[in-house]
Amino acid sequence: MKIELCEVGPRDGLQNEAETLPSAARAELVRRLDATGLRRIEAASFVRDDRVPQMAGAEAVVAAAGDTAATLSGLVLNEQGYERLAATTLKEVHVTFAATESFNRRNANRSVEESVEAVGAIVALAHADGRRATVTISTAFGCPFEGEVDPGKVVELALRAAALGADEVVFADTIGVAAPAQVQRLAAASIGSPIGMHFHDTRHTGVANAYAAVAAGVTSLDTSVGGLGGCPFAPRATGNVATEDVVYLLEREGLTTGVDLDALIGVAAWLEQTLGRPLPGGVYRAGGFPKL
Amino acid sequence: MKIELCEVGPRDGLQNEAETLPSAARAELVRRLDATGLRRIEAASFVRDDRVPQMAGAEAVVAAAGDTAATLSGLVLNEQGYERLAATTLKEVHVTFAATESFNRRNANRSVEESVEAVGAIVALAHADGRRATVTISTAFGCPFEGEVDPGKVVELALRAAALGADEVVFADTIGVAAPAQVQRLAAASIGSPIGMHFHDTRHTGVANAYAAVAAGVTSLDTSVGGLGGCPFAPRATGNVATEDVVYLLEREGLTTGVDLDALIGVAAWLEQTLGRPLPGGVYRAGGFPKL
Repeated sequence: MKIELCEVGPRDGLQNEAETLPSAARAELVRRLDATGLRRIEAASFVRDDRVPQMAGAEAVVAAAGDTAATLSGLVLNEQGYERLAATTLKEVHVTFAATESFNRRNANRSVEESVEAVGAIVALAHADGRRATVTISTAFGCPFEGEVDPGKVVELALRAAALGADEVVFADTIGVAAPAQVQRLAAASIGSPIGMHFHDTRHTGVANAYAAVAAGVTSLDTSVGGLGGCPFAPRATGNVATEDVVYLLEREGLTTGVDLDALIGVAAWLEQTLGRPLPGGVYRAGGFPKL
Repeated sequence: MKIELCEVGPRDGLQNEAETLPSAARAELVRRLDATGLRRIEAASFVRDDRVPQMAGAEAVVAAAGDTAATLSGLVLNEQGYERLAATTLKEVHVTFAATESFNRRNANRSVEESVEAVGAIVALAHADGRRATVTISTAFGCPFEGEVDPGKVVELALRAAALGADEVVFADTIGVAAPAQVQRLAAASIGSPIGMHFHDTRHTGVANAYAAVAAGVTSLDTSVGGLGGCPFAPRATGNVATEDVVYLLEREGLTTGVDLDALIGVAAWLEQTLGRPLPGGVYRAGGFPKL
């Protein structure tokens, strides 16, 4: 079975790191990731440079990344962001809203209902332009402000995203609290669009959840090279589940990711050098299965 | 379902750390762990003080630990070690051999066959004294020198350990390479003794493997507070899977460990202070599920 990984290091990863890499270095990261066999890369975020300096110069990142075998995508938060993306060569847009009111208000300064409407408008614009649109529902497994999140409510929101035309709906474990039974319940939902999953390794359960998702039939996972990315609500914790860690486990299970693990470890090592500190990932430090 | 955790931080954890804690601090760690609800703790190793200074003064650790609700155990490598253990109050002995010749020779300086015989002699001594004996088979999922390990061979060795009277046979992923399908295959073996599993989080797959083991019916897992412990064959990698990380996942799955997670997080935080550096575990840094 083929598992499709969407590499989110250049966007979700770097956006949540203290360091700001110049756009040329972010484009180089995208090119290096592309060379490992990854076929989906979230490359940029079209947000205001003064608000998120880590993501400044999204257009320059896309231009410098050039032609890639991977489909590159960009995150947008509103229609202005979409117009910027639409002026680039990107063929896929990512939009997001939270499953919980308090998180959505803090993050997007509006209600979940307002966010769902805004997301619908962007999906419509993307489709009118012939672009694919992925909708990510954050706090789908737990919320730092509201705690437990009703899976029934999450599925209801996913059905709405699918009805708005989402080409894929991703359930995101924004704060890294998910456990396998929850994962399997959401994985089994019939929403009319393909389902992806996005895990954080904040509590070192990210690989277990990825494994549970795949066992439940999910074939699309977000991961981040080197485990790049933080968790704003747990400052001492790690962020996204590391791409190498997930590739290692899936390939040892006999599944196919299309990714060259050694090449990916090389990218994480380069990134460690570039950032000047160890990254959270495990496999890039330990190496793959022993070679004789 | 109740999952029994055997806490190995005071022995397998500390033995593989660069720092040496005095026996009083190790005894305090045992007492603090006992207070969290853990009911099995590997407390000491009866080895030569000059060979393994981290474990020096095993008798003093056991004496200072005093009465505990947990059953304390000690590792022994040979009959001299067992005689030392037999002079203490410990009621359980742990012995080990590797599934692969090259690892066993480097680690124990003898063949697997010789080690199996030595283990049998110690199990017999323990039983004559009314003690329980756990036999751990290391490199059961992969070997740094031989690579892939035939599960059939591992099961054959487990059958021999069981025939020698092992009260429990533990399959250990010494270098942290295991993946769930392998885990499930060994978990399903009928060997005539209860099966335990021992995972390392070297490649961040430890929690996934613990989950897979439990899903396959294993009810006994070795874990280490804070993820204490190193991996001699991957110097930049983490060691044993962290007790808190496993407790978090199992309890979120609705399983019972009998461990107070917040108390355990407190022990890891105390240990971080005592050692003066962050430990590899995830949950003790991030906290449990958000409390409102």
